[in-house]
Amino acid sequence: MAHDEFSLIRQWTSRSDGQEKDGLTVGLGDDAAVFSPAPEMEVVACCDAMVETVHFLKETMSPSDIGYKAVTSNVSDVAAMGGYARYALVSIAVAPHWTPEECQGIYDGIYAACEAYNVRVIGGDTVSAPDALHLSVTVLGEVEKGRAIRRSQARPGQVVFVTGHVGSSAAGLHVLLHGDQTTVEPSGRWAKLIEAHQRPRAQVEAGRLLLESGACGALNDVSDGLASELWEIAEASAVSMCVDADKIPVREDVRAYALLSGQDPLKWAFYGGEDYQLVGTLEKSQVEAVRARFAAAGILLTVIGEVEEGKPAQPKLSLRSGDSRTDLPKAGYNHFRQRE
Amino acid sequence: MAHDEFSLIRQWTSRSDGQEKDGLTVGLGDDAAVFSPAPEMEVVACCDAMVETVHFLKETMSPSDIGYKAVTSNVSDVAAMGGYARYALVSIAVAPHWTPEECQGIYDGIYAACEAYNVRVIGGDTVSAPDALHLSVTVLGEVEKGRAIRRSQARPGQVVFVTGHVGSSAAGLHVLLHGDQTTVEPSGRWAKLIEAHQRPRAQVEAGRLLLESGACGALNDVSDGLASELWEIAEASAVSMCVDADKIPVREDVRAYALLSGQDPLKWAFYGGEDYQLVGTLEKSQVEAVRARFAAAGILLTVIGEVEEGKPAQPKLSLRSGDSRTDLPKAGYNHFRQRE
Repeated sequence: MAHDEFSLIRQWTSRSDGQEKDGLTVGLGDDAAVFSPAPEMEVVACCDAMVETVHFLKETMSPSDIGYKAVTSNVSDVAAMGGYARYALVSIAVAPHWTPEECQGIYDGIYAACEAYNVRVIGGDTVSAPDALHLSVTVLGEVEKGRAIRRSQARPGQVVFVTGHVGSSAAGLHVLLHGDQTTVEPSGRWAKLIEAHQRPRAQVEAGRLLLESGACGALNDVSDGLASELWEIAEASAVSMCVDADKIPVREDVRAYALLSGQDPLKWAFYGGEDYQLVGTLEKSQVEAVRARFAAAGILLTVIGEVEEGKPAQPKLSLRSGDSRTDLPKAGYNHFRQRE
Repeated sequence: MAHDEFSLIRQWTSRSDGQEKDGLTVGLGDDAAVFSPAPEMEVVACCDAMVETVHFLKETMSPSDIGYKAVTSNVSDVAAMGGYARYALVSIAVAPHWTPEECQGIYDGIYAACEAYNVRVIGGDTVSAPDALHLSVTVLGEVEKGRAIRRSQARPGQVVFVTGHVGSSAAGLHVLLHGDQTTVEPSGRWAKLIEAHQRPRAQVEAGRLLLESGACGALNDVSDGLASELWEIAEASAVSMCVDADKIPVREDVRAYALLSGQDPLKWAFYGGEDYQLVGTLEKSQVEAVRARFAAAGILLTVIGEVEEGKPAQPKLSLRSGDSRTDLPKAGYNHFRQRE
């Protein structure tokens, strides 16, 4: 990339220059950033990459949406530990077919997300790429010392819960890829689904409520679909889990769109991903108390199943539908289709 | 990327599973890692991206070299703050023409570097890419609270120094791209230049000595060539600097190869980059004391010039050669050629 272009990018990123405070000693503009976590807090660190054609298309995501989602997916990982995000490092590799205006749009989305989540960009790298645009974001957050919520603490007798609705992002993508012109209008009937796909929100407040409750066993965020997340918890905790098909919280408009388009909304919920809701386990005795706190905060929390004994080293995930139980595979639309 | 391939990659990265200690509460295998810096230390954070065809070619760097350099460039940024590295998050996007063995090689290089620098991989993301391989590494380190060495603290009267030799990496790249078969043999005459390009070492010990000395004004690492690094210091500190052409530490074999190939070794030193040496300023009264500490540690430290008053808001970088002084531009071989 030519030097002038780098100067341009420095302009885009300079919005958080200066004004170091709240534990940040050195921000942008040096070899590295320097900060201290707040007293009694640990640092939470995670990293997610988004690649053009693999994770997004220009046709389905605006540049600003791409930037917003890249930050969201990382903030969501921090939320899934019960923490909150503080800082971001943004590594972007720009391919020639991206205009400066589009790149500006990506940064607009990044900074919009940073504002929404109270995150500050403290570093990164801007390079050129031969073909596809790559965006890799590292988010650093904080969590109370020794209190991060792990995947491995699901225990038999706990219930399985999920926040908000699932399957909406995958439904939105289906609208964008297969809907007709009128369908995808912002004011259209499926606007909320499209928004769920393009502008998902990380559930930081829900994660904090869960940590504060002290009742949460295991926790994951729904980046790869419910099945994958529940399997990760089952394997890390060496337990089995059973969830009820008719308890999975799917939006009414998702069900309506699925019906119209001949799709299975549960497939979107279990194998779609990018909903960035939190899924995990709760002490049964604490469910009502936690639900009350969530209700007071206006956040939906749904109990969808329970943790079971299961044979050691043979974790299992089952879907209950009426009287029948079927095994839910980790991934793969094909397996799921066989069940249908 | 197919699920099986992800499992494979999980194998590669699983080498640092478990064994959390020394402030690391959660390592690989959860939504995010969790750690605390040592008492009295702050966190240092930086991020560098390397892209195939832009930053490296399969022809000039082995997979293991690529992984090693990606970690080195970040550890070097931490060293340029006077700190040391602790953790790494590795984001890799693998294109179809990279075999599993080559990817394994990249991780081998990453882990070899991590061992050399005492760094632990605590997170990352592995995705597929349509075309070029992308490797983005975030390194988190530590530095004593309030003591990070900034770019902005160069003051008139200080001397300008550099550690080790510069220009070697660019010379090595020239050998690899333009040398004949016998030239590039590992046992050949230019083997050290090739090694300087393929396996550069970050100067962590030098950075620590500089921080401990309390005599260091500004500090940068030589990732983009001396000219660019000195300009960054001059601009951040609002000073001018003058360096002497005949004091720049260039290896004898670099000079010999430059002579044979009709190149200017100073061009490599000023505009080559990737030497990962440290360049900065020192209090004049402390130079001998610092030099003695470096000598005791077996690290070369060379005074190459001095910081000058300069007009505010008009920083300048000059090269002195005999009685003549010429302005050194920030970047651009072309400008440099005009000087020759």
